Amino acid sequence: MSTSLQAAVDAPGRLMAAEIAEQPRVLERILASYADHLAPVVARLRSHDTRAVLLVARGTSDHAALYAKYLIETRLGLPTGLVSTSTYTGYDARPDLRGVVWIAVSQSGGSPDLVASTRVAREQGALTISLTNVEDNPLTDAAELRLPLLAGTEESVAATKTYSASLLWLWLLVQSWSGGDTAAAARVPEWVAGALDRPEVAQVASRYRFVDRLVTTSRGFGYPTAREGALKLMETCYLSAHAFSGADLLHGPLAMVDEDRPVIVISPAGQGARMLQPVLDQLAERGADVCLIAPQETAAGAPVRILLPSGMDEQLAPIAQIVPLQQLALQLALSRHYDPDRPRGLNKVTRTT
Amino acid sequence: MSTSLQAAVDAPGRLMAAEIAEQPRVLERILASYADHLAPVVARLRSHDTRAVLLVARGTSDHAALYAKYLIETRLGLPTGLVSTSTYTGYDARPDLRGVVWIAVSQSGGSPDLVASTRVAREQGALTISLTNVEDNPLTDAAELRLPLLAGTEESVAATKTYSASLLWLWLLVQSWSGGDTAAAARVPEWVAGALDRPEVAQVASRYRFVDRLVTTSRGFGYPTAREGALKLMETCYLSAHAFSGADLLHGPLAMVDEDRPVIVISPAGQGARMLQPVLDQLAERGADVCLIAPQETAAGAPVRILLPSGMDEQLAPIAQIVPLQQLALQLALSRHYDPDRPRGLNKVTRTT
Repeated sequence: MSTSLQAAVDAPGRLMAAEIAEQPRVLERILASYADHLAPVVARLRSHDTRAVLLVARGTSDHAALYAKYLIETRLGLPTGLVSTSTYTGYDARPDLRGVVWIAVSQSGGSPDLVASTRVAREQGALTISLTNVEDNPLTDAAELRLPLLAGTEESVAATKTYSASLLWLWLLVQSWSGGDTAAAARVPEWVAGALDRPEVAQVASRYRFVDRLVTTSRGFGYPTAREGALKLMETCYLSAHAFSGADLLHGPLAMVDEDRPVIVISPAGQGARMLQPVLDQLAERGADVCLIAPQETAAGAPVRILLPSGMDEQLAPIAQIVPLQQLALQLALSRHYDPDRPRGLNKVTRTT
Repeated sequence: MSTSLQAAVDAPGRLMAAEIAEQPRVLERILASYADHLAPVVARLRSHDTRAVLLVARGTSDHAALYAKYLIETRLGLPTGLVSTSTYTGYDARPDLRGVVWIAVSQSGGSPDLVASTRVAREQGALTISLTNVEDNPLTDAAELRLPLLAGTEESVAATKTYSASLLWLWLLVQSWSGGDTAAAARVPEWVAGALDRPEVAQVASRYRFVDRLVTTSRGFGYPTAREGALKLMETCYLSAHAFSGADLLHGPLAMVDEDRPVIVISPAGQGARMLQPVLDQLAERGADVCLIAPQETAAGAPVRILLPSGMDEQLAPIAQIVPLQQLALQLALSRHYDPDRPRGLNKVTRTT
């Protein structure tokens, strides 16, 4: 291999960049092939007398689970919780989970605590569903029903395409479970393509070149994006990126926001934006340096902003809204001479018990 | 008033210091008088066919709710979730909540989103319970059943005694609901008194004098303490204090921990400590500067540590474990010439909708 070709292959962030860029195609592929995988799961769910839903996940997948929690609460009206696995693996709780739907989300399907708690949930009567990317994995074996992410092999340690794929799958699952039409999802790949390579991302990366602490915030359907964006920045740039729901931010942590700490505000694409206004007002009052990530129609007036396609459906928009934050994490890491494909101290599969 | 007396009255952190110190007496008072308040609530719960529990709270109270989630899952075996109020107040979800127990925790009982979502929950069939400190408040009016925190007026903006009081109330509630004996709680005031004024706190405050970013971590019953400790440090010292469950820390954020960022590890008082060992091992491998907060019997060997009374019950220990973190936040704020009684930009009652 020539020296220049070898250099391109080894270029820092090559994997993460490629996987970010691949997202529209991954989502197209899911839309073309999800129906056969989803049908038996939805049939089982619709004949199931569900009293509550529990979601279990870690890291990036936990943010997909949080997104699903909002969807399930608003679309299905079921009480929903995110599981603390230690209840099952550390304290050996054996609750009666009959009537509970248990959804486990994991790129690798290999994390021992997810596998062990899912096994317990199934034994205790829950209807268990796995959503994983790697083809054969212990989590899929542990759960009764399985959904394949179909994102293709993810090589970068920082997960990107498996996140957007998880969101789309969870939306398709909940929408079908509620008896709704999934046609709206057809525009998602186009929105994601429109969110890719926004020129403002480079400007913000330059503005944040020397930042070591920042805050991300949103509400409702924008909040999982704030959480996942902060995690990407922590993993790849080693900075303190702190995500808060806008409401929680006003209950205490606002004290640590001043003119020296940038705040990234992700505006939900619909009625959730209204809930964010008091947060934006308070941030302005404190002189905070705000970067607003919002659809074109609502970002007017923000001095620092990253624009997203207009007309997105609020509940599907998170699949596109994460993209500029993935690219910001990538660009900021590269500008600091870090390799986001190989963050220090991380492995692709994390083995927690 | 003499000049020196006036200075003492106005001394920064006076209110927070007094309320931290008051905690053993507050807890004694609750133990002496809870039974009459709790009896009708427990009677109602024990005759209620409960399918799931939802908890709603913000800020410090949200960490008490998280504690209750672990308790309810392990003691009652009920699926439990923390509510995102925006589901109810922003997206107008109207789920069927028959068979759901809804517990709202709030010092003031005045936050509009808690009141509005509790009102919806009650209309939708949930059995609603409020736990508040201020005597007459809209949240108590909204809920069907009420529990009074009995912590006395809390004047410091940074909540301390209402947090420990909330934990004790929630333990008493869950323990009585499960039909268990509440005798073990009798030792809590003694443990809290034993956790007060540990000489190591001043040493750690001095060590952290110039720190602007730190991480707190724990697992299981120690995790709410990690969250609440981080919030206290953010509110009073304006530093980036990032709380992670030990398992989540290994799934990504570990990358941002290096030898320059201190990590406070709160060790659960019982079997939860075992789950923390892989986290401690990884932190040691990375050369992280760890401060271990642990009962005397398990903190051996840690170079930087804050010792707590030995023999604490794991599920009650969080009531004492938060105390050194409250005092660390206070001392660190004072050493930076901040007034923790009046954090910039915060009010005692936060009005989010």
